[in-house]
Amino acid sequence: MESGPSGPGPCVRGSGRAASVSPSPSSGASAGRGCCSAAVAAVLPAGGCGERMGVPTPKQFYPVLERPLISYTLQALERVCWIKNIVVAVTEENMEAMEGIIQRYQHKDISLVEAGVTRHRSIFNGLKALAGDKPNSKLSKPEVVIIHDAVRPFVEEDDLLKVVTAAKEHGAAGAIRPLVSTVLCPSTDGCLDHSLDRAKHRASEMPQAFLFDVIYKAYQQCSDYDLDFGTECLQLALKYCQTKAKLVEGSPDLWKVTYKRDLYAAESIIKERISQQICVVTVTKKDEELTGLLEEMLTNEIDDVKVTSGALFDAGRDLQQIILEQCYNFVCVNVMNFDIQETQKLLSMLQESNLSILYPIVVVLVHFFDHKSIPFGQKMENQVWIREFAMEVKKRNILLYGLLIHFPQEFKPGLPYGSLFTQLFSVCQKPIQYSTCIGHQGMR
Amino acid sequence: MESGPSGPGPCVRGSGRAASVSPSPSSGASAGRGCCSAAVAAVLPAGGCGERMGVPTPKQFYPVLERPLISYTLQALERVCWIKNIVVAVTEENMEAMEGIIQRYQHKDISLVEAGVTRHRSIFNGLKALAGDKPNSKLSKPEVVIIHDAVRPFVEEDDLLKVVTAAKEHGAAGAIRPLVSTVLCPSTDGCLDHSLDRAKHRASEMPQAFLFDVIYKAYQQCSDYDLDFGTECLQLALKYCQTKAKLVEGSPDLWKVTYKRDLYAAESIIKERISQQICVVTVTKKDEELTGLLEEMLTNEIDDVKVTSGALFDAGRDLQQIILEQCYNFVCVNVMNFDIQETQKLLSMLQESNLSILYPIVVVLVHFFDHKSIPFGQKMENQVWIREFAMEVKKRNILLYGLLIHFPQEFKPGLPYGSLFTQLFSVCQKPIQYSTCIGHQGMR
Repeated sequence: MESGPSGPGPCVRGSGRAASVSPSPSSGASAGRGCCSAAVAAVLPAGGCGERMGVPTPKQFYPVLERPLISYTLQALERVCWIKNIVVAVTEENMEAMEGIIQRYQHKDISLVEAGVTRHRSIFNGLKALAGDKPNSKLSKPEVVIIHDAVRPFVEEDDLLKVVTAAKEHGAAGAIRPLVSTVLCPSTDGCLDHSLDRAKHRASEMPQAFLFDVIYKAYQQCSDYDLDFGTECLQLALKYCQTKAKLVEGSPDLWKVTYKRDLYAAESIIKERISQQICVVTVTKKDEELTGLLEEMLTNEIDDVKVTSGALFDAGRDLQQIILEQCYNFVCVNVMNFDIQETQKLLSMLQESNLSILYPIVVVLVHFFDHKSIPFGQKMENQVWIREFAMEVKKRNILLYGLLIHFPQEFKPGLPYGSLFTQLFSVCQKPIQYSTCIGHQGMR
Repeated sequence: MESGPSGPGPCVRGSGRAASVSPSPSSGASAGRGCCSAAVAAVLPAGGCGERMGVPTPKQFYPVLERPLISYTLQALERVCWIKNIVVAVTEENMEAMEGIIQRYQHKDISLVEAGVTRHRSIFNGLKALAGDKPNSKLSKPEVVIIHDAVRPFVEEDDLLKVVTAAKEHGAAGAIRPLVSTVLCPSTDGCLDHSLDRAKHRASEMPQAFLFDVIYKAYQQCSDYDLDFGTECLQLALKYCQTKAKLVEGSPDLWKVTYKRDLYAAESIIKERISQQICVVTVTKKDEELTGLLEEMLTNEIDDVKVTSGALFDAGRDLQQIILEQCYNFVCVNVMNFDIQETQKLLSMLQESNLSILYPIVVVLVHFFDHKSIPFGQKMENQVWIREFAMEVKKRNILLYGLLIHFPQEFKPGLPYGSLFTQLFSVCQKPIQYSTCIGHQGMR
């Protein structure tokens, strides 16, 4: 056995979950880091119809926070710089929808092929495209090919690296997990024949990786029965190429979205990931006292609270950095004067960042104002402006909320204004958690 | 083979998910319905430590909407009238916590025994208690015993009935599901030895049921190795009593909460279940115009919108019926006059119903008022009252929200007041969906 990986090493494009699609300077440079001595491609069979899900849309296209599940999976593969090409097999009827997803979420290096009637046939079509068997193909034959599922969006680079490294050494490798349930073997009358020892068996998960020549030969030689009824690529490599796959312990995150409950879980996991950072923006010096209180409250609940104060124009550089670090939650505090221009500046920066291609950005405009000092007409005008602007930025996946809080000029810290903060806090805290509930009604 | 069940027939206590703990007249009578010719008990091993969950609390005690997971499972078993006793095996260190849960959620007919160091040993302890081997036991030996997991809260009566009926005929029966992943058998070097044909194997799920004498004999005869390393009760019945268990196709809802993502899924499923019904209560005749608009909006989004109008005193009977049908979401509309007494009446009825033992009840008080016509002092007084009252009813698991909407007396339907409704709607719609986010901060 060789020691250590001789092929790809860890090399994630950009810094964080979304970096692959925001054209940052590091993105182009990554290919030159030398982390990628083997040519690696990936094949994603996505021809399933999701009958177990109990929903009409095939599960790979089911929206999670309004973005199709498969787009998360593509993103997870794309951000790994040493995966050169990704081939997705989709049915003819979903081809156009898939092209729309690629365009909308700015996926790169994706090739589409037509799915077969079974998973194995879809994978075979993907492999044929990589082998150069198709005329006019721009793809070149890789040394190693990863096979992954479109419905396992949480795959990490580490999992991919492990199977690719093992495949280079063993010819084939696949992620496994402990069995959650004991496996039973029924007899023909529907009664128990015997049960399997749970400790001696493992669940086969994805990703798997193969030397391209091994798996392609296996598919070329295998029978129609295999193609129509088989479920395990590792078994094909064993049967037709005598390649004993290395089994690699995978992380719990590799799980496959199968039932409707898994969609709920996927949504909660994504929400949790993007709810851990919030940025509080103040427009003028005099807002800082309130901002301090708000920061204190938020810090108790959220991992990472950033505050940038001073007029936005000055804070622009700070903000740019915060946006680059992929913060998805902003609270913009205005005391008394409601400065539309400053708010527009923040929203422009967010739109330019392209961050919202991946997940919705939530911006809560908090305006403390005094009933008595602001004419009714102006209040209505502000509300109408927020509503219209919210409709506009919603198209760019930015969810804008306005929160008007009565705040007498004779304000002194203490009760009963503490309760106003509590209410403000309850709106700001993890805003994404209910953006899907109220986001699309809230400002229409 | 006999045709049709000769034992228990469907007979859920009360009418719906929560009926078992609300002392309704039907509850006591159900035992006499003759649906229960066999004596059936259930054993729940709950001694696990949840190491796969990645959370410090054992998973059966993990809070889902603030209520421990095991309490949902107990509720699911309790509402089935033909299950006479439920024996729960918990570790010594969790005994007190478990007693607290039983008291707090008013679980009935539960006996606690000490868990063993493995799942099989915990089940054996539960069976011993039912066999009357323990001195001073109030339990009597059942004909059939169900074994279920504390972390499968969504079991339906139909699933239980199927396994009990099959156990009476075959001596043993267990729920099964198709395999989600192919099962692999590794060789000693960590490589693939062979994969199993997915079509010929099944995942063993819970519940299972046994003739008591069969499973008790099996446990009495089995080896320490079985007790320490075995995972399958059906296998014990086969090995020691030559009883071939009937395998019964279970519903997808039988899944086991294993990982943290499963907790997310469980929470979403429960929220969905209690978000499908909402009741709009109007206090006076003149609120009916607004209520009509609100009803129209809600009907587009929620399956079941009930409206009860007229003063609460008159509507009492209607409301009682709605509460009996287990509605968890109430919107109480007040135009201009904010009638504290009427609101108190509604909240008293809800408290008396005991509904909130199971899930939080959400009550949104909507008060349309005119800045100009109501003195500032009175507005503050109302806010303070709502806040204090919310703190009070929170102790009874009722989440009270106040929504004050500026509503000029010269109101004419149409813009811009449409947006007020939209905002109101966004709060009312599926309120439980964000009650956990804002409920506990919102009014403190």
